[in-house]
Amino acid sequence: MALLLDAGGVTADVARIFVGAGLDPEASRTVAESLVEADRLGLASHGVMLADMYVKRLKAGSVSVQSEPETVSDRGTSVVLDGRHAFGVLTGDFAMQKAVEKARVHGAGVVAVRHAFHFGAARRFALAAAEQGCVGIAMCNTRPLMPAPGGAERVVGNNPLAIAMPCEDATPFVLDMATSEAAMGKIRMAAKSGAAIPDNWAVKADGSPTTDPVEAIEGMLLPTAGPKGFGLAMMIDLLCGALSGGASGGAVKPLYGDPALPYDCSHLFMALDMGHFVDPAEAKARVDAAAQRIRSGARAPGVARLYTPGEPEWRRREALGEQVAVDPSVLAALTELARELNVDLTTISKQIA
Amino acid sequence: MALLLDAGGVTADVARIFVGAGLDPEASRTVAESLVEADRLGLASHGVMLADMYVKRLKAGSVSVQSEPETVSDRGTSVVLDGRHAFGVLTGDFAMQKAVEKARVHGAGVVAVRHAFHFGAARRFALAAAEQGCVGIAMCNTRPLMPAPGGAERVVGNNPLAIAMPCEDATPFVLDMATSEAAMGKIRMAAKSGAAIPDNWAVKADGSPTTDPVEAIEGMLLPTAGPKGFGLAMMIDLLCGALSGGASGGAVKPLYGDPALPYDCSHLFMALDMGHFVDPAEAKARVDAAAQRIRSGARAPGVARLYTPGEPEWRRREALGEQVAVDPSVLAALTELARELNVDLTTISKQIA
Repeated sequence: MALLLDAGGVTADVARIFVGAGLDPEASRTVAESLVEADRLGLASHGVMLADMYVKRLKAGSVSVQSEPETVSDRGTSVVLDGRHAFGVLTGDFAMQKAVEKARVHGAGVVAVRHAFHFGAARRFALAAAEQGCVGIAMCNTRPLMPAPGGAERVVGNNPLAIAMPCEDATPFVLDMATSEAAMGKIRMAAKSGAAIPDNWAVKADGSPTTDPVEAIEGMLLPTAGPKGFGLAMMIDLLCGALSGGASGGAVKPLYGDPALPYDCSHLFMALDMGHFVDPAEAKARVDAAAQRIRSGARAPGVARLYTPGEPEWRRREALGEQVAVDPSVLAALTELARELNVDLTTISKQIA
Repeated sequence: MALLLDAGGVTADVARIFVGAGLDPEASRTVAESLVEADRLGLASHGVMLADMYVKRLKAGSVSVQSEPETVSDRGTSVVLDGRHAFGVLTGDFAMQKAVEKARVHGAGVVAVRHAFHFGAARRFALAAAEQGCVGIAMCNTRPLMPAPGGAERVVGNNPLAIAMPCEDATPFVLDMATSEAAMGKIRMAAKSGAAIPDNWAVKADGSPTTDPVEAIEGMLLPTAGPKGFGLAMMIDLLCGALSGGASGGAVKPLYGDPALPYDCSHLFMALDMGHFVDPAEAKARVDAAAQRIRSGARAPGVARLYTPGEPEWRRREALGEQVAVDPSVLAALTELARELNVDLTTISKQIA
């Protein structure tokens, strides 16, 4: 069972770990906050369980302590950034803000990033645009993890896509989906806890079915909805890689591979300023009305509640208030990490003790 | 079994039907060509089977003989058009060309259309942008056809999304997906031929399962991949409706409902000019290389060939050369339609006789 801890305290602890590993305090705070936020939303595979791998890569030099990307080109709405292998959340925050600034001027802003690192949950960036009155779209590629329909070889990542709409409602209206049936992080969580996985999540390396997460990690994730998920994943791979001039397909390295080898993924961020199309207040009211329509709809027998896209994660966050649920094995790994770095943990140590 | 006819001859015949119904010759030719092209690609549900409903709506006045949209606003990259209930393919061709022109100047172009009508297969518009060196994205909303996960009421359409990438390869690299597990047009085709449908395509009106296409038409389509397909459909609905200031959700009317009542859907077209980001030739080479990588990948036992997104439809078109396969029941309906309009059909009449 996961332990409930004070979210602010865990954030401060995780930030201290990154400072201990050589990242500057402000950047450390942002990385820690984004990881804890993912855990608060129930997205454990994007949560503080990543800190261990993040720090390993930071120490091995494949993730940079540089936090600001370099501008490769800037033409009209279109910007290409070199992430310089900084933490993806730092690059992503910067890039989406640039997209929003472009959208303010032109109507649309499109920022592609090469030499990027894992950015966590994509919804963060889409929502940052939505909070500023823009449609926000964020995506990235990963190394190949999934076969083409009928294939027996990994050719494309389970590349995620997030889209957020501006609204007045306090509940964010956001889609955040991986193009695999399940996220590799979820399979890794299952492997850590020794649980079986559903048979439509992945296949073995030879293409045959499995419910064993270890076999799945050595094998291939399956695209969601067959050719649809595969096609969408391919488009995201090429949108990120081709528009940035960065890596796509097999040029992106394994996230849990050699920590000295840059992950080298590519990101894409888009913002569309509502005010360039219509009255922004009316557009927000439309989104709010659609959300109400979904929630108040007739329910199938036994269903207690209907949710808008992104709402289940938000309700989970609300239900836990200022607390965050973290798996004991993850807390143990953080404690070990702190010990190695000679960092004192305030909130986490109390729980582990 | 479908009959094989000369595609050019069928196009000329179908164009004559639209001219007979009062549409000008050039527009008639475009509408006919887009329907026949869908049939050539094997997308019969977007093919000439639609001509009957299209003509009924034209005669009843809910589809306009006006072919040019009106510009509502034009700010930077962002254009809002009023389609004035013209045939969607006419509005769509115009709108995507506008998006490409905007992308040439700014890097991105985004054109939203209100008061629009059915535009057929979305890939056409995405590919038109790709042929001009732009990433092309096209989407539209339909009336609500699918429930939210756990819902027993239709709240969102099976809104399609197409994305095309520029490439040198003669085979288009394009995703064109509905956000339902199956297209309503396919279910209508099954109903016409009396065939059963898979049980994950739709549910009855009360939310219970069915394999009967007639029950499915009276019931609800199911989103593809559950919450992912549902979320994507919701975002497309609002992107089209909120950015255009046009209809979304239940404000879009049934396509096969009262032919005097405008369908009133909304469209969205986006173009991203490759040259604003990177060297366009290099970007195309990247897409070609990705396509080769997919096709040459290891195959699961029994699989003869692997396909890139959009390739199966293209191979079907190639295999039939200048011919198009049309169902006898569809040809019979076209013949009846021609009789009503006092139009002579050259190619189709020969086959029916």
